Amino acid sequence: MIDRRSAFIGGMTGRWRIVKLEEVTGESLERVPRLDLVVGAVTALPTAASWLLRGVTSNERYTTRSERELLVAKQPDLGRPEATCAALIPVKKSTSWWALAQDERRAILEERSEHIKTGLKYLPAVARRLYHCRDLGEPFDFLTWFEYAPADSAAFEELVLTLRRSEEWRYVEREVDVRVVRDGAE
Amino acid sequence: MIDRRSAFIGGMTGRWRIVKLEEVTGESLERVPRLDLVVGAVTALPTAASWLLRGVTSNERYTTRSERELLVAKQPDLGRPEATCAALIPVKKSTSWWALAQDERRAILEERSEHIKTGLKYLPAVARRLYHCRDLGEPFDFLTWFEYAPADSAAFEELVLTLRRSEEWRYVEREVDVRVVRDGAE
Repeated sequence: MIDRRSAFIGGMTGRWRIVKLEEVTGESLERVPRLDLVVGAVTALPTAASWLLRGVTSNERYTTRSERELLVAKQPDLGRPEATCAALIPVKKSTSWWALAQDERRAILEERSEHIKTGLKYLPAVARRLYHCRDLGEPFDFLTWFEYAPADSAAFEELVLTLRRSEEWRYVEREVDVRVVRDGAE
Repeated sequence: MIDRRSAFIGGMTGRWRIVKLEEVTGESLERVPRLDLVVGAVTALPTAASWLLRGVTSNERYTTRSERELLVAKQPDLGRPEATCAALIPVKKSTSWWALAQDERRAILEERSEHIKTGLKYLPAVARRLYHCRDLGEPFDFLTWFEYAPADSAAFEELVLTLRRSEEWRYVEREVDVRVVRDGAE
């Protein structure tokens, strides 16, 4: 059985150097120098680490078959050598978002906010992986991890700003933006 | 913050007496005399218990606003004094189910299998609560808990059989059916 769990650990060690960490909405995370991404189960905060955010990759909740085909055709794998920049964006949505029915959430997320379409527009430049964590009792609902080359930094800013201006983002009650660069990539 | 976690514990103690425990598809659970339902976190198998199944109540994954309104208008609370019969039906779906896109799963679940409509037909007789557990790394994907009065037992059998004959159920690779009666209700 595939282990779908991963953990992001903020502290003194890790492959990624944190170059910016700021709250967008609500409470921030402690500012630390480094970020580690661990695939698999992490049951407790490691010694000398300041925070631990866990999530699981899961089935798609909104994407249709035709949207997925467009995504799959364009999306790159994580870990491209040239993608030395990355971002971890943990998001928590409001109770009112989770109280909406499936068709209402889908209508806001895509028909009105074009969340999927916006992500597609920045492929293959910005690779992305979504981790779910609401049902794990974690402090955030989602952790999104993005990887891109330094030359695509402006495109990434545009992607993030477009989403933050969308109707969907009115339901975001906590968001932190953690930007990192890979060791040896400076 | 509301704790959405619950645990079903099979063993020697618990409020519910197990009157039948059988596999429908795939591996069974150990046959034990009693079932306990614990609201909140259970981190380890209690002493003398044989199995522990955990899940969380979560947002709806398929139900539309109009379907929800029909459900809310008819569905009773759990814990009705007359509902002395209950069933715990843990289900695991196949990899091919989870690989489907959201619109494909919705089409099978409701447009072709009438899962929501079938549940609605047996309201208010059969009260129901769905727990999600796939993303928790549990052995099943869902735990569904049903409560009904002895007089509605035949209706409940019909509900279960209708679902098992549906296209959606072709994706079920493990299912166990645990029937219980409440203490003092015999």
